Amino acid sequence: MSAYAFLEEKSKKINTIKDILGILNWDASTMMPTGAASLRGEQSSMLNLMIQQIIKDSGFAEALENASSQNLTPEQKANLNELKRYYIHQNAIEDNLLKEYTELTNETDMVWREARPQNNFKMLLPNLKKIFDLARQMGEAKAEKLGCTPYEALVDEFDPGSNCKKIDLIFNDLETFLPDFLQKVLHKQENETKPIALEGPFPIERQKELGLKIMDFLGFDKNFGRLDISTHPFCGGSTNDVRITTRYDENDFVSALYGVIHETGHALYEQGLPDAWSAQLAGQARGMGLHESQSLFYEKQIGRNPHFVSFLAPHLKQIFEGKGPAWDVDNLIQLNRQVQPSFIRVEADEVTYPLHIIMRYKIEKGLIDGTYNIADLPDIWDNFMVKYLGIKPDSLSNGCLQDIHWPVGLIGYFPSYTMGSLIAAQLFASLRDQNANVEKEIEQGQFKPTLEWLRKNIHEKASFLSQDEILIKATKQPLSANAFKTHLQKRYLNA
Amino acid sequence: MSAYAFLEEKSKKINTIKDILGILNWDASTMMPTGAASLRGEQSSMLNLMIQQIIKDSGFAEALENASSQNLTPEQKANLNELKRYYIHQNAIEDNLLKEYTELTNETDMVWREARPQNNFKMLLPNLKKIFDLARQMGEAKAEKLGCTPYEALVDEFDPGSNCKKIDLIFNDLETFLPDFLQKVLHKQENETKPIALEGPFPIERQKELGLKIMDFLGFDKNFGRLDISTHPFCGGSTNDVRITTRYDENDFVSALYGVIHETGHALYEQGLPDAWSAQLAGQARGMGLHESQSLFYEKQIGRNPHFVSFLAPHLKQIFEGKGPAWDVDNLIQLNRQVQPSFIRVEADEVTYPLHIIMRYKIEKGLIDGTYNIADLPDIWDNFMVKYLGIKPDSLSNGCLQDIHWPVGLIGYFPSYTMGSLIAAQLFASLRDQNANVEKEIEQGQFKPTLEWLRKNIHEKASFLSQDEILIKATKQPLSANAFKTHLQKRYLNA
Repeated sequence: MSAYAFLEEKSKKINTIKDILGILNWDASTMMPTGAASLRGEQSSMLNLMIQQIIKDSGFAEALENASSQNLTPEQKANLNELKRYYIHQNAIEDNLLKEYTELTNETDMVWREARPQNNFKMLLPNLKKIFDLARQMGEAKAEKLGCTPYEALVDEFDPGSNCKKIDLIFNDLETFLPDFLQKVLHKQENETKPIALEGPFPIERQKELGLKIMDFLGFDKNFGRLDISTHPFCGGSTNDVRITTRYDENDFVSALYGVIHETGHALYEQGLPDAWSAQLAGQARGMGLHESQSLFYEKQIGRNPHFVSFLAPHLKQIFEGKGPAWDVDNLIQLNRQVQPSFIRVEADEVTYPLHIIMRYKIEKGLIDGTYNIADLPDIWDNFMVKYLGIKPDSLSNGCLQDIHWPVGLIGYFPSYTMGSLIAAQLFASLRDQNANVEKEIEQGQFKPTLEWLRKNIHEKASFLSQDEILIKATKQPLSANAFKTHLQKRYLNA
Repeated sequence: MSAYAFLEEKSKKINTIKDILGILNWDASTMMPTGAASLRGEQSSMLNLMIQQIIKDSGFAEALENASSQNLTPEQKANLNELKRYYIHQNAIEDNLLKEYTELTNETDMVWREARPQNNFKMLLPNLKKIFDLARQMGEAKAEKLGCTPYEALVDEFDPGSNCKKIDLIFNDLETFLPDFLQKVLHKQENETKPIALEGPFPIERQKELGLKIMDFLGFDKNFGRLDISTHPFCGGSTNDVRITTRYDENDFVSALYGVIHETGHALYEQGLPDAWSAQLAGQARGMGLHESQSLFYEKQIGRNPHFVSFLAPHLKQIFEGKGPAWDVDNLIQLNRQVQPSFIRVEADEVTYPLHIIMRYKIEKGLIDGTYNIADLPDIWDNFMVKYLGIKPDSLSNGCLQDIHWPVGLIGYFPSYTMGSLIAAQLFASLRDQNANVEKEIEQGQFKPTLEWLRKNIHEKASFLSQDEILIKATKQPLSANAFKTHLQKRYLNA
């Protein structure tokens, strides 16, 4: 067996283990009884250790070297590069450290579920402190090998090729642009007639029916995935089995609906990856920035687009038996365009959302590099909220306890959300350049041409190219905040 | 590390993998989208291979030998014996054969789900043929080492210590007793006023509420388990996470309710196993015969007991808003005591149920030893039905396609159902001897003393003793059909 063939076999094994972890994690968030948390932690820990063992098996490092001199196709070369990058990330961490981190974050997930509704930061603090301590250790171990800072090493695992220089450049641009822009939008909004609110209740069964219907329109294949409920919506599962979740509120269907559209964007990416490469690292999604661009493409560029709202309106009216002017298309469009600084990131509008991300980015970077102390998190959080959005959270569950990311050990993940917003805007601008009919199609409920464009330009590219390469091929330019700013100006100021 | 300590560590790893398999299997039957079936098969296959690798690691066999000369406690000795038995079962099978069997049965599970509603035996036949061929090979490989026939080797994996001589002795007793007895019951029934049928519909949400309520009464701990829906009800999941399922019919709540009570009996056994031994083989349930005795103890000895029906009646009336004489206790008791030869095993009454089992036992034994040909299964099945119960199935889904067992590779499993009935009857007779108040307690909804008795006599014994030893300790006599026959005579002939 050639060195490359050996690596392909290992990659398949690793991917199968990751698929199992995907189902176990989905189960833990949607189905598992609370008493099983610690044993589930042990199960995940064992599976992660198995991946480590495959990686650290002396044959693996040797095969990476030997395969480099083999005659490989471009796709195989890309796969080899991914294997090398994966090796660096995995091999840098001691088995015991990884085991501890996995068990700790599994446990903390459950602690967070208890602490959040009780606004109890103290309950979470000891675990959270340990998580950041261990993450710092892991970042340090990797930083050496990747030639970057410990925080950047954490980011790299989620979004390969990202770095603080690139992030800072773009985030500074937004930090300069957004506050002024926000004031202009709020000012314009003040002088407009207020839209009429939709009155509930909106039965959860109907909301679920609506979500499934829209998933179907957008192209989600139910033979290879499903929709469930969890506290924090996500897209997970495994190859050929994409599990998305949402959460329902009887008084507000919009949050669950756009949550479903968002996760459907993630799911379409997963379902559109090339089948023949599903067991190989190069066959996986490129990184979380691009992944988030797909969810935000569907949620913001399409879902909040007035043409989509026109398409949606009759479905909403029918499912919720809506009557009166509140359900008119113009009112729904106006409702969808409201901007309002608010506490909860996942419910924030497009204009304020990046500010939620920039503060999380600064906080987690500061917690890793020692600028901040985790015990001060509630104050740090509230100060940023006041500075960026002019509001102070009324509770911890509406403040620093709102997100699942840190409790489950996702540190370095947040920047990808806003990178995703920018990529989504840049992609949609290109798609519109290339297909002048796209918004008309959307209004008519024809989502296939859009999906095909994404399949060809993003999904099928998997990890054969870098994020930058994929983006330049698709949009003819590197990533910047320009398309996003243009998009905001058009949608919110008619400019 | 001592040889025994080494084995303990391996046992823990094996058990963690089995726990993961338990969740994946539950998911496959309750949640998984159809398109994921073949990849799920690969996942299970990989995990089963990992167990094989642990077992076949040269260190394992050596440790088994070396540990024998260590100074061990009785529990540790029992654990070592279980490890030895497990080793024989696992080591006898070639890796490739096991892989093929796992993938095949995973796939066939999905084929069966399609074939059954279509009454399509031909769709299932090729897979089923392969399953029996591979099972025969596995039985042959083990038979040598266990000193028994290939079919007995298959039975031994589910019910250690069982053999055809023992099974035949008891089944022949029943085969002689039941047909005559059935006629007597039918004759008596004919001369009684017919009970009034309960009229639906019984909304599924209410049925679920009822099931959860009764689970709670019986002592099921919801922090360590849950209730879902599947085509074929089962009790699965993992340590501290017992997943039971049922299926609902809007026109008949009785089937789902008694299904839930049955699976709760299994679940209580799992939840009652000694915590300290949960990762060791000796800490697991003794075997499927004893496991089935726990489910049937709750379903038949308790659940169908007139005193339980008295307890149940007001709950039924309240949940289903029942009105009129059909909901009177006496009518409900009479409804519960109806005997009627019928097609479906899982819906059969206590009197006819063993005949369903005896025919399955004879068929699967015949298919393994070559007496029967799998292509003839529909005819063989119908002939037995006519011979034993005087009725011929009106469709294949009501005939040989009704059970999930063979499609998922459970061959040698069926006898344990009837062994379980007999054990349950023998246990309940002993409990009543030791606690004259037990039926009064049941009528008052006090199930704790009964559960405590089972905890002490069955659950906590785990696999530290053989099934025979556990039974003799609990009931002062070895297993026979006597208590079961006495029970039937009392319940159905007031004798």
